[in-house]
This record gives sequence, C-alpha cells and structure tokens, in this order.
Amino acid sequence: MESAQAEARASVTPFQWTGHELRVLDQRLLPAEEQWNGCNDARSVYEAIRSMQVRGAPAIGIAAAYGVVLAAHRARGEENWRDCIARALDELAGARPTAVNLFWALRRMRACLEHQDNATDAASALEAEALAIHDEDRQANVRMGELAREIMCEGQSQPMEVLTHCNTGALATGGYGTALGAIRSLWYAGALAHVHVDETRPWLQGSRLTAWELGREGIPYSLNADSAAAMILSRGDVKWIVVGADRIAANGDVANKVGTLNLAVLARHYGARMMVVAPSSTVDEGTPNGEAIAIEEREANEVRTVRGQSMAPMDAPVFNPVFDVTPASLIDVIVTEAGVVHQPNAERMASALFV
Amino acid sequence: MESAQAEARASVTPFQWTGHELRVLDQRLLPAEEQWNGCNDARSVYEAIRSMQVRGAPAIGIAAAYGVVLAAHRARGEENWRDCIARALDELAGARPTAVNLFWALRRMRACLEHQDNATDAASALEAEALAIHDEDRQANVRMGELAREIMCEGQSQPMEVLTHCNTGALATGGYGTALGAIRSLWYAGALAHVHVDETRPWLQGSRLTAWELGREGIPYSLNADSAAAMILSRGDVKWIVVGADRIAANGDVANKVGTLNLAVLARHYGARMMVVAPSSTVDEGTPNGEAIAIEEREANEVRTVRGQSMAPMDAPVFNPVFDVTPASLIDVIVTEAGVVHQPNAERMASALFV
Repeated sequence: MESAQAEARASVTPFQWTGHELRVLDQRLLPAEEQWNGCNDARSVYEAIRSMQVRGAPAIGIAAAYGVVLAAHRARGEENWRDCIARALDELAGARPTAVNLFWALRRMRACLEHQDNATDAASALEAEALAIHDEDRQANVRMGELAREIMCEGQSQPMEVLTHCNTGALATGGYGTALGAIRSLWYAGALAHVHVDETRPWLQGSRLTAWELGREGIPYSLNADSAAAMILSRGDVKWIVVGADRIAANGDVANKVGTLNLAVLARHYGARMMVVAPSSTVDEGTPNGEAIAIEEREANEVRTVRGQSMAPMDAPVFNPVFDVTPASLIDVIVTEAGVVHQPNAERMASALFV
Repeated sequence: MESAQAEARASVTPFQWTGHELRVLDQRLLPAEEQWNGCNDARSVYEAIRSMQVRGAPAIGIAAAYGVVLAAHRARGEENWRDCIARALDELAGARPTAVNLFWALRRMRACLEHQDNATDAASALEAEALAIHDEDRQANVRMGELAREIMCEGQSQPMEVLTHCNTGALATGGYGTALGAIRSLWYAGALAHVHVDETRPWLQGSRLTAWELGREGIPYSLNADSAAAMILSRGDVKWIVVGADRIAANGDVANKVGTLNLAVLARHYGARMMVVAPSSTVDEGTPNGEAIAIEEREANEVRTVRGQSMAPMDAPVFNPVFDVTPASLIDVIVTEAGVVHQPNAERMASALFV
C-alpha cells in the first residue's frame, strides 16, 4: 500500500508515545535545538500545550488525548480513579481555549471513559482511543496527500516544482501534514523536483519548521523571503502552490495564514494553480463566505521584533493580521479527506462535502 | 516656492556638514539608536562609507565629496597640498567599489581640483563643489517629488493611501528621497492619508529605516509583513504603489528591490497604480530590457538569520535574489527629474529621456 509506505517513511513527528510517557519535541527551540521533553502525567502535557512546545490544532488534540491516558495510568491504584481522570480531562481542556480539535479529542476520550467500570480496563480503553485518534489523523492526512498527488500529477510526466507557505506538516498534525503532507506524497511518488518554501513572516513557520521538516527527510527545497515568490513564479517552473487552511467557508472562500491571498493572485497571473489541503473539519457550513470571517490582528511586536530583537521603532504602528481570505474564484481545488472540490463555489462545496 | 518649503521641512538627513566636520548618522544602529559620528578627515569618511554607516548610492557620493573637502582643509599648510588631496580622492574611490554615484561625485571633485593653483582657493572651491553636489541631489529629489505628486493627485479630491517598499528616503540620498520623497511631497501638500510600509525582508529596510524616517516627520504610516500587501490592496483604499529603482532598462523594465514585481502584479489585479521614482542616472540606455539585467543573489545567511540570530536550519538551501525585474507592461508611470514616462515602452522612454 502506498499509504502505509508513505506513513512509514515520514520520520518527523511532534511527539512519541512510549506506552508510559509522551515525549514532546519542543517546537519553540526549533530549528536551533531538537529537545524532547518527557511528559509523565496530564499536568506536564497540559504545560507542553499551554507553553506551545506542541502547536498545530490536530497535534494539540492528540497530545491532550495522551495526557488523559497518563492520568488513567496514575489513577489505577486509586479508589476515586474516575474522578482523577475527569479532573485531567477538565484541566487539559483549558490548555488552549480556542483549539477546536482539542475539545473534539477530549469529547471522544470522555465518551470512552463513560463506558468503563474499573480502573485497569479504563486505562487500556483510553490508551486504545488515544492511539485511534492519533492514527485516524495520520490516515486522513495520508489520504489527503494521495488525493492531492493524483490531481497534481494529472498530465505531468516530469517531477514538478511547488511552492508552499507556513507550516502544515508533520509538526502541526499527527505526523504527516496537510499541504506539506501532499508535498510528501508527491516526493514519495517520485513526482517532486523542488519545494520553494516561503519563510512566512512574521512568525517564520516556513524557516523554523517547514525547512527543518523537509531537511530531515531529504526532500529538496529552498527557503525564500515571502516577497521573492513573484520572481520564482515568473520563471514558469512552479506548477502548483499548495497551502493549508484555518477555516473554509461554505462557498469555498479560504481563510489561511496571511500571504496566502498574495500567492493566489500571483498564481493566477503566472498560470500556476492554487491548491488548498485541509481536513473536512476545517470546512464550516455555518460561514457562508469569506466576508463573514473576522480578521484577527495580533500584537505589533511580532512585526517589530524578531526573537526579542528590535527591528523597527518600538512605537511603530503595525498592521499585523494573522490570516487573509482568498476568494474561491482564485482557488483551483480544495482537497479534504472526505472529498475534492474543483473550482469551488457554494454549489460544488455542498454537493461534495455537506451531507 | 513649494520646492523650498518641502526641502526645509524634511528633517531627516544621513549626514550634516558643519564647515569643518561631516557628522554621519550611523544607519547600522537604526532604529534602536541615533548615533552621529564626527568625521574630521578623508580617512574617517572612507571608513564611514566602507562600514555602511552611510548607505544608498546618492548619499555615498555626497559623503565622499565632503571627504575630499576635509582632505583639502588639512592640506592647506602643506607644500604638496595637491598630492594630499589626490591621495584622498584615490582612497575614497575604493570605499565601495561598485557604487556608480561615488565615482561620479569624485570625478566632479577631481575636475574642480585641476582648476586650482593654491591650497586656500582649492579648499574653498572644493567645498563649494561638494555643497553643489549635495544641493543638486536634493533638488532633483524634490523635483521628482513634485512631478510624482502632480500625477498622483490628478482627479483625487481626498487624501490618499499609498504603499511603499524598501527605503528610498532621505537616508539613501542627499536628504529628501526618491519614492519616499514623492510620498513626502504628497504629505506636505495635504494629499496623503496613510503610508503602508512593507517591512522588506530580508534586510528590513522598511522596518529599520523607512518607519524611522516617517515616524521622525510625523507622517502617518503602518508597518506590515511583506505578504500582507495583498490583503491591504484587496480593500481598495491604496491608490498608488510607489517604489524606487536600481536600474531601468531602455524599454522601461525596472530592476528594484526583490518584492517590487510582487507588488506590481497585485496592483494590476486590484486596480492600484504602480509608480517608479528614480533619478535619470538610473535609466540605462545600454540595457535594452529586463532580460539583459543579471539577477544578483546574496548570501544565504541574510534569510537564515536576523541580526545574527538563527531563524532556520543553518544548512537550509536559500534563494536570496537582491532584486527582481518588473516588466514595463506592469508599470503605470516612471518619474525622473528629467521627465515622466506614462505606460513606458522603448519608444516613449526614448522620446522622453534619451537626447
């Protein structure tokens, strides 16, 4: 199976479950340092999430599930084992209050707990559930990667160049990636020549995380300042721009890391194609279009400083939106594990994704 | 005269000539620190240029001219005064070997020296020549600013928003600026509402220098990550993108700081207009078009690091072009002190600028 092969070859992962410990790769220190922190109880998993050692909505949900397992292991000798686990569930839910995947994963763990009537069985069942959540996330990513690869390879006989933005890789998910998972799938199939990686200001997820992931796997890439993308696309060698999504509206408008709209306009001008890869949970039927998505702005110092170093007047007014909205009309295809929507609009989104 | 008013109000300058000393603002320390270094002889001016305390081709040429004046002052008591000044001329020419304006300014100073027959008159004549070079540069910038303002204000009754990239201001010139000079002229005329400033990775000239200049003069601006430009333009409030140029080909193709092409494509998509402001010395009749311009790439660590801090794997492959080439077809107008070219092409460039 190509799927199993692809998964087996993806060596980058945000954490490792040993059966009695969750080892978390501290993403705050990447790429300078690869430090793994061992979490032995729910509290230390909570701290790892809260302090952003682990980031990325799917990765956070999975880590929290393992945190519940650690609580269940500790509770095995306790008379009030159910209360101990319930407290851990409540605590973990507060680690990152806005992460939808966190609540979703903990709901699954809580439902699992309700069916148990002794501490030993509970620990086993909860561990099986956490492993299932982790595995399902990886499988969904690999499935998206294969769907994306099939689309990108249509009519292509030569390995191709692609360009990506931000980090949508193994580090943000259960271990494979969404847009970067699609790029992995291209690579494993021998269909990838080169990845152009936007450094992705202001947080530099491209420089810090995507470059590190690609380097670890030996996937050929180069890093570029975000504003060099036009020059790269003007050469005509980049066939696809592949990005993730934070939210997809019912009409196919896509909110994603700021700079995505920039790339979509460039792609249209230079004849490259624009692909969005995201789990179906990202598609929000309740948001009719991009105009209904509030644009969150983050603090000015993210732009004024880099790792605490001042790069601008410290009283400089700053416009720092987290994401922008790319209209569906500039997107060639949206790939989810549940289905693919070419030339998205409200009708095509509904028929492909909404049951 | 609007011209004189505009000049008088421009408070930012890369250096100050006191009559016996050149005080140089150390641009390497901006914006964290405003340190003025006094240069009392040609050697210290050479050092200020070589070490990039002063940068920007026009600014370098003017500083070197003042360095020659300092040498002439020192040589007044010497029997071999002409040789002393000639040695300073030779030394200063080596400070930045590729700066065309440096050689041009020193040629003028050398020609002036040849007409002198005593040390005292030489010192006076050379000082007058340096002041003339400085003044002519400012006048050319102010002239460009006025031409640019007239074009931008046509049919506009309300103060407008503009967007700029890199630093093309007082700090890069004799004290007013090219593209940023045009923006100053808009402001002095009450026709400017807001300047959007691209931070301009990798060197962050926008954050470090342009934001500082605008803040010093109280011109309303905000700083943004380069890739936020699409979102800003999508709102429709930015009427003009105003940039400088490193070289303009005979057909109107423009080489400028990387990211300029990005903005030109966005401007066309969103209906903003694209203006290039540069002295006529930037236009190269001998370069037929943009394809004839070699794209210089700079070292990888400019992208991997920020002020010495590692932001990416230190073995990350990097694509780091200094500039990109915007085709004339994406430029609405080129403004020089010698003339204006709307919708540039080879024919219009020749009839407006080539004698």
